[in-house]
Amino acid sequence: MTSELRKDPVTGRWVIIAGERGRRPNPFRCHPLPEEWGEACPFCPGHEGMTPPEVLAYRDPDDGANAPRWSVRVVPNRFPALRIEGTLDKRAEGLYDTMRGVGAHEVVVETPGHDSDPSQYSARQMVEVINAYRDRTTDLLHDARFRYVLVFKNHGTAAGVTLAHPHSQIVALPVIPARIEAELNGARQYFEYRGRCVYCDILSQDMADTRRVVAQNADFVALAPFASRFPFEVVILPRTHDPFFWTLTRHQMEALAEILQDVLRRYKLALKDPPYNYVIHTAPPGYPAPEVYHWQVEVMPQLTEIAGFEWGSGFFINPITPEEAARTLRDLERVMDVPGGHLLHGPRPGPGPG
Amino acid sequence: MTSELRKDPVTGRWVIIAGERGRRPNPFRCHPLPEEWGEACPFCPGHEGMTPPEVLAYRDPDDGANAPRWSVRVVPNRFPALRIEGTLDKRAEGLYDTMRGVGAHEVVVETPGHDSDPSQYSARQMVEVINAYRDRTTDLLHDARFRYVLVFKNHGTAAGVTLAHPHSQIVALPVIPARIEAELNGARQYFEYRGRCVYCDILSQDMADTRRVVAQNADFVALAPFASRFPFEVVILPRTHDPFFWTLTRHQMEALAEILQDVLRRYKLALKDPPYNYVIHTAPPGYPAPEVYHWQVEVMPQLTEIAGFEWGSGFFINPITPEEAARTLRDLERVMDVPGGHLLHGPRPGPGPG
Repeated sequence: MTSELRKDPVTGRWVIIAGERGRRPNPFRCHPLPEEWGEACPFCPGHEGMTPPEVLAYRDPDDGANAPRWSVRVVPNRFPALRIEGTLDKRAEGLYDTMRGVGAHEVVVETPGHDSDPSQYSARQMVEVINAYRDRTTDLLHDARFRYVLVFKNHGTAAGVTLAHPHSQIVALPVIPARIEAELNGARQYFEYRGRCVYCDILSQDMADTRRVVAQNADFVALAPFASRFPFEVVILPRTHDPFFWTLTRHQMEALAEILQDVLRRYKLALKDPPYNYVIHTAPPGYPAPEVYHWQVEVMPQLTEIAGFEWGSGFFINPITPEEAARTLRDLERVMDVPGGHLLHGPRPGPGPG
Repeated sequence: MTSELRKDPVTGRWVIIAGERGRRPNPFRCHPLPEEWGEACPFCPGHEGMTPPEVLAYRDPDDGANAPRWSVRVVPNRFPALRIEGTLDKRAEGLYDTMRGVGAHEVVVETPGHDSDPSQYSARQMVEVINAYRDRTTDLLHDARFRYVLVFKNHGTAAGVTLAHPHSQIVALPVIPARIEAELNGARQYFEYRGRCVYCDILSQDMADTRRVVAQNADFVALAPFASRFPFEVVILPRTHDPFFWTLTRHQMEALAEILQDVLRRYKLALKDPPYNYVIHTAPPGYPAPEVYHWQVEVMPQLTEIAGFEWGSGFFINPITPEEAARTLRDLERVMDVPGGHLLHGPRPGPGPG
């Protein structure tokens, strides 16, 4: 079968069921396994033929598509959770709602360097990665079938990675993810009651309080959220109110690249290169109340054994206070300012396969 | 600090922050580590002095409390996420809401047998475990500070277990967990629109459809939910409408024990003894619309590498259709009916430490 979107009749949450991914040798993995590719990495320069044709690449314009010299390359996922072709075909099965699994599933190959670490990319490289997120999001949102574009990265095996070459993923969806919907609803309720953006109020209170501030620059603030679910969870908020991620300027991309790498370096140093995920949260296209929502990047190291009961209950126990987490990450500045504090000011990785 | 409950200002979700658990040698674990106990298992008979004094035990009434001969024993968690003493002390910190971490955190030692497997317990043993869930829930709900009692089990390291002796956990909370709240809201909306319980309708449709039925007996049905988030997820629904878990009769406890063990045996056989979790979902005490909600047990094997981005997005990809999962688990009946199908009709484990 092709994949299908199904709606939970109680909570309204949508889930993608099966599809092409079920045909893979080990369907209980969310990523292509290295074995499938043999020895060769499909994301390394020179192996462009191992992936579907690219949908975007930053390279010398004199080189053709799918040639080896590029800095960032975006390709369709070879085992997509959703297919780009067709109509949504919404229908009911008794009390259940379902639609065809129409959408896009792309892989952003972040660097030619197989062994590169995102926290060690050159500033320019990280800006290009963010630029690719923005370019692909903008392009995918031209398709009226898509109501949301989800940009996320898994780093480390425990965070869901099985292909080592650094990459992120982009999923274009015909529905809004449950958590984003909950945020939009909560932010709207807050706005109706107080007449202000809840995230702007969080920024204002936490900047005055200072205890939960992890890092900041002229355009962004990295905070340990007051009600963090996970140890060392961080949210990166733009200082100026904007509901949409994809409107960010070149200047803001540089500032975001800087603070994101800053947070990742702090994780690496304080938490010994932990697995982590980040997810971009944005209002959906055409969102009718732009004053209500504030786009952001959520960053989560994966340090705890996730007890699956939390999936069932929505109930979380965080063993570290956000204030303590923020202090731990913030205090690294002493280390970082020392000459030779190489984890925070490391060498720029060269291009080419690692 | 003692632990604290904090409310997310956007989504309204409550989280428990820190507390006693932060003092443990490795705070990034949710359970006492074996190292802390040395060689001896604190849950084995004869080691009753290693746990806080029991709050419940099923044993010969001639034996005193905390003596070795018992079938099920419930003790306070030595590293509780919440403390039983004190008032809630609700207050605001600017836009944030917080209250003291008042609640209960108990461990249900399910069997004297250190190496016992829940799927292999005698029927009587499993009934006693469920009876302990019910007895403790009823007792904890006498405390007016508690608005919900969460009963759950983690089985296997990947599902959050670090102490091998079979046990479940009970957490009494002064707030309703986010997922339960979402279910109550969704069920209420459905009822307002259709005038019927959504779970009763699910039962009725899925029993007629049959494709998602995993197992059944006179009182319960085990289904693979239509919009399952995880492969081989199962929900056990009582056939008769009841919002509250703790009203179940002795007869229903026997039927629940039977179908729960049936599901766990099917997991063991089909999925090679996977880690799993189960969580009891119930309406909270005093819930004013008992016609709306339907208590249930959610069972989830942990087969996929959980990509943390799902925590950020609420967006799930399930590589197996629920119909295929149900068929796989259902088809085991052929194996189970064969004489010597010992996994499903195994020997009763003896009492005493393993």
